[in-house]
Amino acid sequence: MTDHQSFSIQPIAHIRTDFPAKFGIPRQSMLVQSLHGKIIFEPQFRNADALRGLEDFSHLWLIWQFSQAITEEWSPTVRPPRLGGNKRMGVFATRSPFRPNSLALSVVKIENIDLHTPQGPIITVSGVDMLDNTPVFDIKPYLPHIDSIPEAAGGFALPVAEQKLEVEFSANALSTLPQDLLLPIQAILAQDPRPHYQEDENRTYGFHYNKYEIHFRVKGNKVTVVSATFMQTT
Amino acid sequence: MTDHQSFSIQPIAHIRTDFPAKFGIPRQSMLVQSLHGKIIFEPQFRNADALRGLEDFSHLWLIWQFSQAITEEWSPTVRPPRLGGNKRMGVFATRSPFRPNSLALSVVKIENIDLHTPQGPIITVSGVDMLDNTPVFDIKPYLPHIDSIPEAAGGFALPVAEQKLEVEFSANALSTLPQDLLLPIQAILAQDPRPHYQEDENRTYGFHYNKYEIHFRVKGNKVTVVSATFMQTT
Repeated sequence: MTDHQSFSIQPIAHIRTDFPAKFGIPRQSMLVQSLHGKIIFEPQFRNADALRGLEDFSHLWLIWQFSQAITEEWSPTVRPPRLGGNKRMGVFATRSPFRPNSLALSVVKIENIDLHTPQGPIITVSGVDMLDNTPVFDIKPYLPHIDSIPEAAGGFALPVAEQKLEVEFSANALSTLPQDLLLPIQAILAQDPRPHYQEDENRTYGFHYNKYEIHFRVKGNKVTVVSATFMQTT
Repeated sequence: MTDHQSFSIQPIAHIRTDFPAKFGIPRQSMLVQSLHGKIIFEPQFRNADALRGLEDFSHLWLIWQFSQAITEEWSPTVRPPRLGGNKRMGVFATRSPFRPNSLALSVVKIENIDLHTPQGPIITVSGVDMLDNTPVFDIKPYLPHIDSIPEAAGGFALPVAEQKLEVEFSANALSTLPQDLLLPIQAILAQDPRPHYQEDENRTYGFHYNKYEIHFRVKGNKVTVVSATFMQTT
């Protein structure tokens, strides 16, 4: 698979998010608006001038790396979770992470631009769908007159009846979790992060968010956060 | 500028367009709908299965390489032609080709998908803004419920009074050019491909399109295609 045409790219930044692990991450950007991330530039790209004019835009494109999905061999087909995980579609007809070159594309909303911090300029964005510390290769402004095509046909990826789950927190979970994490956790769980067609109401699922491991069960249309554990990190 | 984090990507395809040289190429995709391109996959990616389901979408994202703008050193600011070329903006607030990693992002419309040709599957798209033979690193479906944000703020890149030029062909040009090239050439010239603030009505400009060199002059709001020359290629 080596190729004389191969081309080397390097991260210009990394994005810090509250997702230390994959499970729980929304399947696309902008689905859960309350999820924030911070774009921290690599030392050689810490230059406030490079962001001049960005304050006039509301949204950004990020080209980033599906860093947990890098494979040597490519597969022409993938099983989109939206189709229940049991139907194969062409990889170029999906946004699957398992693709040649492992490049991801997400639109996010600009929440704040801080040009001068000890780590250089930091862009805070919302609607993120990346693991913590994901490499970012490019940042481009979203140009609505070019990029927005509301009438485009969305194929099988069109939102199927976007049934959101109801989320409740046990007293135990509420006693552990900081107030400001409740809204994002609620929004993540309302999207039903379980693998499709897994409907075991006795099973306790877990995912990592911020510094917590969140444990939940799903019964019918209702998610209960049964507990949360603070994760000791080194 | 070497970096232990650098990452190697390789073209999955090349796009064939009627632009053998840069001058004349629209500044964004979709501005000139009549410009078609053909996506030809690299031998190891010629697999009809990889496109299964694509026929349900109307538009595609292409992540490609600004192959004529690769530089070793990056510049934090660029001069967008839209601002007259005399004002510097941050590179990450623009879609300039002169950027770290030289990655380009364009949305194009799917015109046709031919799964079985001697060169493997070929996707014909319209609204292209790439040089002929540009390397393509990824193809993703356009998802309107995610990617379309009509209310996004477009900053200084918002369309300024999109004044199109009137285009006429001399008898000489008409006698040389094939009929089917007249519409795209007219559309390219209506966008005024001249560098901004160049208003010398005695100057003859030239650009390459398809197999022709097109010569034109601009006077006020009117472009005249004075002649066209067939380019002998080897």
